[in-house]
Amino acid sequence: MANKIRVTVWNEYRHEKIHDKVAKAYPQGLHGQIAKFLGVNKDMVLRTATLDEPEHGLTEQVLAETDVLIWWGHMAHGDVQDAIVDRVQARILEGMGLIVLHSGHFSKIFKRMMGTTCNLKWREIGERERIWVVDPGHPIAAGLPEYFEIPHVEMYGERFDIPQPDQLVFISWFQGGEVFRSGCCFHRGAGKIFYFRPGHETLPIYYQDEVQKVITNAVRWAAPSGGPQVTFGNYKPLEEVAPQEI
Amino acid sequence: MANKIRVTVWNEYRHEKIHDKVAKAYPQGLHGQIAKFLGVNKDMVLRTATLDEPEHGLTEQVLAETDVLIWWGHMAHGDVQDAIVDRVQARILEGMGLIVLHSGHFSKIFKRMMGTTCNLKWREIGERERIWVVDPGHPIAAGLPEYFEIPHVEMYGERFDIPQPDQLVFISWFQGGEVFRSGCCFHRGAGKIFYFRPGHETLPIYYQDEVQKVITNAVRWAAPSGGPQVTFGNYKPLEEVAPQEI
Amino acid sequence: MANKIRVTVWNEYRHEKIHDKVAKAYPQGLHGQIAKFLGVNKDMVLRTATLDEPEHGLTEQVLAETDVLIWWGHMAHGDVQDAIVDRVQARILEGMGLIVLHSGHFSKIFKRMMGTTCNLKWREIGERERIWVVDPGHPIAAGLPEYFEIPHVEMYGERFDIPQPDQLVFISWFQGGEVFRSGCCFHRGAGKIFYFRPGHETLPIYYQDEVQKVITNAVRWAAPSGGPQVTFGNYKPLEEVAPQEI
Amino acid sequence: MANKIRVTVWNEYRHEKIHDKVAKAYPQGLHGQIAKFLGVNKDMVLRTATLDEPEHGLTEQVLAETDVLIWWGHMAHGDVQDAIVDRVQARILEGMGLIVLHSGHFSKIFKRMMGTTCNLKWREIGERERIWVVDPGHPIAAGLPEYFEIPHVEMYGERFDIPQPDQLVFISWFQGGEVFRSGCCFHRGAGKIFYFRPGHETLPIYYQDEVQKVITNAVRWAAPSGGPQVTFGNYKPLEEVAPQEI
Repeated sequence: MANKIRVTVWNEYRHEKIHDKVAKAYPQGLHGQIAKFLGVNKDMVLRTATLDEPEHGLTEQVLAETDVLIWWGHMAHGDVQDAIVDRVQARILEGMGLIVLHSGHFSKIFKRMMGTTCNLKWREIGERERIWVVDPGHPIAAGLPEYFEIPHVEMYGERFDIPQPDQLVFISWFQGGEVFRSGCCFHRGAGKIFYFRPGHETLPIYYQDEVQKVITNAVRWAAPSGGPQVTFGNYKPLEEVAPQEI
Repeated sequence: MANKIRVTVWNEYRHEKIHDKVAKAYPQGLHGQIAKFLGVNKDMVLRTATLDEPEHGLTEQVLAETDVLIWWGHMAHGDVQDAIVDRVQARILEGMGLIVLHSGHFSKIFKRMMGTTCNLKWREIGERERIWVVDPGHPIAAGLPEYFEIPHVEMYGERFDIPQPDQLVFISWFQGGEVFRSGCCFHRGAGKIFYFRPGHETLPIYYQDEVQKVITNAVRWAAPSGGPQVTFGNYKPLEEVAPQEI
Repeated sequence: MANKIRVTVWNEYRHEKIHDKVAKAYPQGLHGQIAKFLGVNKDMVLRTATLDEPEHGLTEQVLAETDVLIWWGHMAHGDVQDAIVDRVQARILEGMGLIVLHSGHFSKIFKRMMGTTCNLKWREIGERERIWVVDPGHPIAAGLPEYFEIPHVEMYGERFDIPQPDQLVFISWFQGGEVFRSGCCFHRGAGKIFYFRPGHETLPIYYQDEVQKVITNAVRWAAPSGGPQVTFGNYKPLEEVAPQEI
Repeated sequence: MANKIRVTVWNEYRHEKIHDKVAKAYPQGLHGQIAKFLGVNKDMVLRTATLDEPEHGLTEQVLAETDVLIWWGHMAHGDVQDAIVDRVQARILEGMGLIVLHSGHFSKIFKRMMGTTCNLKWREIGERERIWVVDPGHPIAAGLPEYFEIPHVEMYGERFDIPQPDQLVFISWFQGGEVFRSGCCFHRGAGKIFYFRPGHETLPIYYQDEVQKVITNAVRWAAPSGGPQVTFGNYKPLEEVAPQEI
């Protein structure tokens, strides 16, 4: 069907192969679990791509056929080739949506799109997180309660070194004393970008209902909206305007 | 159908009754023409309301059944009762979309939502307007060329005294030397507000394709998105937190 | 000196007269304490005004001589006359800065400028607050650590029903599980508005160094910046543009 | 004096050496003229740096001693070394201001900070430009009229492929039918960035009063504001929070 949203879930897919605990938490890989819960939506078609495939699975053709790209990476950000980052950036500017999850904050593509370090504070003691909706009218908050909790998480704390989001949808509260801008919308070129904090390679966060709902909503929000083809370069004036002597 | 967008087109509807030229340009009233071109969309159901109906046609029930309210007013802004403005404001904050057209910039409801005078420069010499898309990724720009022209318009010029829009979709160029932020998105409470400059009571602007497309897109963008029910007031802490001695 | 910032601290000044605990915490009134710590700055001159003075102390002349107005109110928001709110709004749009403190979120003037209910969650159990700087480059964050704590506060929690701030400087963390956008910048007309959450009528919050520093920085940020005189209304075109036949 | 703003004007400085017309328009180079008009301000100290100096004149030490960097480039953007771009980016994120002029829109450093192509339309027929102030309360608009004209310019037209500015101060009108967001503020890390459109290598634009005033204002706005030192990385929780079993 022409108007299904074509989603590509990209995963580094290294942890799962070398750490038993990760393999146990996400037997089909993090990408497999994300593609699975998104795949139940009739308005979406899913594919996956991983770091160790040729061209990281992100060939020109795959990207041309992708409306929304979801990005998970953690331990191997440096192994992503710059040429592929260039290619992904170009597609975003053309209109492809990008959803960056959790540790993807440090991916080359997210840092490229932001222009900042995307650095933050972190801590792994399995504390509690409360995610508050601060923009209840945003489509990404559809169907959510006014907050939801994740019982055990890795903390991410401010200062999060990103540009001020165009819309800030969620702010997280952590038991240990921090806050974090957890759901951040950006627009770059014709593309929409959503950063969503929750996630972890061993904690079962992508099995939680509210988290799945947010990512599902974000896919719909980030899908291309069919705006104008933009032109650049030398441009003709209105007919009646003559060149001036200067 | 449950998920159709319920649109109410509100019109002052005074000009049409007293000026032949307006009656000729818009024989069913400006609201009639707007409701007509929107009515062809299968995802929308239309109704209209006008100033001289009881409660200006905006009863509690009508508003409760409205997803997006379109507002046209010009010569009788002062005749709109404050109690109805209060009611419309409350519904917007709950999630109803509001689309304000052209001279509606000076309506009580728009000034109420903005907190500013909403004043501007204007001129009626029938000059040319070019409306440039500056945010090609915005859903309201769907299906448009990178600019479109309206051959004869009333000019509106900056400084337009509004808060900086959350997203700026269009900037107008006028032959006589002015610019204007012509397509402005705002979020207030759970509601989405779009101000769109083009329009006039005698010029055939609401018969033009691109203008109709923008208003159609705006209805879809401004429809409520089903976010959380928000609560206010006294609120319980986490169980483990005891009151402090202060 | 011509270029001193003329600050008017407005206080409802009712609590102090009827509650011993408030009178004890702020013997010269909340306005007295705020004027006192601001008064040490050589670039500022201070005056105060209170609800029960004629015209609430905010005559045309006082406002004309005010560069930045600080607003504290709590129990008597409804007693502020609408005509004075109109007058304050007009001065803000002309360029006067407005700093709204704590319970002033529910003042008529703040709700007028925002267009929303400005409602929120609250709780008084004297819990701990941590205020995180999320925009370290903002002038209002000058001289602060990356967070500071207030040991005992009244909690204010999200959803805070305001438009998205133009710049968000602080986010608060509360012991009991909530977050709050605690330092919010808005621009309305030529005026700058800063909402700052901390404060209380009995807790000694306006004696705390970091809180005083924020309010001091905010006064400098909110002072008028001498921009253009804006004109509105009917406006002449460029000479070469002739009226069109329409 | 400790609190003077240390400004470095960077210029590619190639045009001036090879084109007589440029050398004639800017005998001391574009950097020389900019440093000259800024140098009359008692709160600023000026230095210049150019592409063909070692490390493009932007050594670690020079940057450490720079509060605001002004960037002019046109024909040799590609000759700027990536390592120097990295260094400038790092200093901006620490708090150094950056002012990018005219054709600097295509510089590596501006594209790096924006994450977009920064592409646009252009035309050189010497037409007229009108620059409208759309944010009269912004410090960069201090002392300006509500618009000013430049009689003969190179046109830059929308779509300008940048992220939506955090504040939009100016919009340009061009005789030939285009508009442009001509004065754009961005915040990245602790640094402030201002893009200002006017300028040309042969037209006498940097001799014009209003243009000089804007750049002067922008230097003051972009100067570092002394905010908190931010920390990143592993972070301790509040004492009372024990690690959870997960």
